[in-house]
Amino acid sequence: MYTEILPELIIKNDKKAILLVADGVAGCTVNGITELDAATTPNLDALAAESSLGLHYPVGYGITPGSGPGHLALFGYDPIKNQIGRGVLEAFGVGMDVPPGHLALRGNFATLKDGIIVDRRADRISTEKNLELVQRITEDFAEIDGVRVEIKTVKEHRFAVVFHGVVLFDNVTDADPLKDNLPPVKAVPRDKASVRSAYTINNFIERVTRLLANEEKANTCLLRGASNLPDIQNFEDRTGLRGQAIAAYPMYKGLARLVKMVTPDGLNEIEKEVEHLKKTFKKDLDFHFVHYKPTDSSGEDGDFDKKVAAIEAFDKIIPDVLETNPDVLVITGDHSTPSSLSGHGWHGVPVLIHGEYAFADDAKRFTERSAANHGILGHIPGQAIMMYILANCGRLSKFGA
Amino acid sequence: MYTEILPELIIKNDKKAILLVADGVAGCTVNGITELDAATTPNLDALAAESSLGLHYPVGYGITPGSGPGHLALFGYDPIKNQIGRGVLEAFGVGMDVPPGHLALRGNFATLKDGIIVDRRADRISTEKNLELVQRITEDFAEIDGVRVEIKTVKEHRFAVVFHGVVLFDNVTDADPLKDNLPPVKAVPRDKASVRSAYTINNFIERVTRLLANEEKANTCLLRGASNLPDIQNFEDRTGLRGQAIAAYPMYKGLARLVKMVTPDGLNEIEKEVEHLKKTFKKDLDFHFVHYKPTDSSGEDGDFDKKVAAIEAFDKIIPDVLETNPDVLVITGDHSTPSSLSGHGWHGVPVLIHGEYAFADDAKRFTERSAANHGILGHIPGQAIMMYILANCGRLSKFGA
Repeated sequence: MYTEILPELIIKNDKKAILLVADGVAGCTVNGITELDAATTPNLDALAAESSLGLHYPVGYGITPGSGPGHLALFGYDPIKNQIGRGVLEAFGVGMDVPPGHLALRGNFATLKDGIIVDRRADRISTEKNLELVQRITEDFAEIDGVRVEIKTVKEHRFAVVFHGVVLFDNVTDADPLKDNLPPVKAVPRDKASVRSAYTINNFIERVTRLLANEEKANTCLLRGASNLPDIQNFEDRTGLRGQAIAAYPMYKGLARLVKMVTPDGLNEIEKEVEHLKKTFKKDLDFHFVHYKPTDSSGEDGDFDKKVAAIEAFDKIIPDVLETNPDVLVITGDHSTPSSLSGHGWHGVPVLIHGEYAFADDAKRFTERSAANHGILGHIPGQAIMMYILANCGRLSKFGA
Repeated sequence: MYTEILPELIIKNDKKAILLVADGVAGCTVNGITELDAATTPNLDALAAESSLGLHYPVGYGITPGSGPGHLALFGYDPIKNQIGRGVLEAFGVGMDVPPGHLALRGNFATLKDGIIVDRRADRISTEKNLELVQRITEDFAEIDGVRVEIKTVKEHRFAVVFHGVVLFDNVTDADPLKDNLPPVKAVPRDKASVRSAYTINNFIERVTRLLANEEKANTCLLRGASNLPDIQNFEDRTGLRGQAIAAYPMYKGLARLVKMVTPDGLNEIEKEVEHLKKTFKKDLDFHFVHYKPTDSSGEDGDFDKKVAAIEAFDKIIPDVLETNPDVLVITGDHSTPSSLSGHGWHGVPVLIHGEYAFADDAKRFTERSAANHGILGHIPGQAIMMYILANCGRLSKFGA
């Protein structure tokens, strides 16, 4: 957004901003109300009364964002122009690093019988079994013809693999029939540069299949979503902000590392995250992204009451966050996760902007309807939020004389 | 809209949607209220109470859409990138087919005197007279050097003509001085490929002029708006929806045929349209566009009360439409036709989205002001509506992991 004029507008100063993301916080009505409507949120209400509110659309009308695009939009990037491959996201999700030119893929353990993939998910073997198989593979071969192999359990039948060492291009087809009861398929390069990648992928599968031949269910594997790290501008170059991502889950840290934010480890719950925020707030950092997960996971569970409770727990951390006294505080979600959908949705997400120069509008609650009916910000693309963070920090100069 | 990512997001399922279009339903205030404000609409009100509302802009801010762009936007196409030539629209309007490569034009009967077009509208001859002249032309010559000529009365001095048989390109100038009291002008090709088109157009005019030499008023004709069928993606390829257009007027059926929807014939009033909808609803179709005209024609007449009555009549069909029990029902217009303007306008058009996963917002009436003040959808481009239809049908997968 405004990439062509942003570089000449960016100003550096000592203003500090917090972007507090309650993952999947937005909902859809059930019997006329959403989880945010139902929750008791005195701290969010008090903040809303002196803030600007609106609804944002992370990717676009009707589009249900995955976590990758949802967060990239919040960081100010165009999520359609900056697509992150599925292999890279899977690797991020389990905390693996994917350096430029290395190749990441999603893997499934699968069942091969008489030359046919009869179950692409190997009867959903347990995560424990998966861990055991991954260890066997790792012990059996650490490299394939000069390419170092790193493999990590995701859960059940799923794993992530990253091939390190030489530049491996990602323009290859999936080594996965994508449906049960078809023969295995090999990765095929779509261009000359990706020949080595296909070779490595096919070799990996062959060696795993040989190694696991005696397994009953997980006696082969499939690899898909081969992807390189996308070429994306780093966050500080783009915004002038030295950023930190405070998150428990590896996926969000991976996304933040992608744009070169600082990503502290070992913060496994929101209380620790906020503690870390307070501890680092006066340091050499301008922007702190703080991620709260339970609003999403309860929505994914399809549990309205649990999501209400997750929102109420989120509300309780607000006073602690405010203790840092940020110049600008933004509270929002990366997409909706309505409990009625048991998954991500396309609905508008409330956004709250608090700061000295943020218009105190008539929206008195941090809810979808309050934002829509009374919010001064109206309906905005997700990428607009970072523009407002910069503006409210006094970090954007006037455009034109 | 989102053309670059849509193909990978489309999912097929058995969810069914209805798009009910009250042509030109949106208005502008007269003594502070619009026709929708004034109308008694118990069925629309009841539906609004459990739906998402907003205002849409079919083409863009301040742009008054014709019926072509207005409907293309509702079907999910960019109406600026997908322009339909005036000749093609005129032909559609009288139910003529324009196959790819054939050439359609708008025609006027006109008055030629001493080598000057003294009246481009031939004193607005009656439609009956026009029908008689068209018949004489058709009987006199059915082809021009291998090009089959099809001509049809529109009304008064206006007719449509389609040249069939060989590929005729549309890059030619109008054979019309466009102002009275100028000499006739010939069509001139703007490129080599269009030489044959110009030749055919000029020959057609010459033969008509010879044939009608003794007519007092309509003794020549003018042709303009030469156009080929635009190259436009078909609706099912774009959306995954097998679509049907239920409309009385040929223009709307022509538009729907352009994107390869099914277009049943012989449905001359809304009751017959709804009957047909019910009859075909369980068939092999996913999407039903139902068109209601009186809201537009009463607005064009500049008759506020007649438009109110047309809206009230529209309201009465809602229970019948709901009997089909669609997964998603969208009600909107293709543009405003304020009776104060006696024509199409640029004003925002209310849109209502009803479905299991549509947010039930605080907008309790299907009116412009209710949608603007309380609608959760806000102000959206017309093309967003099809995205929301797909999303609410569960026919769009998540974007990114």
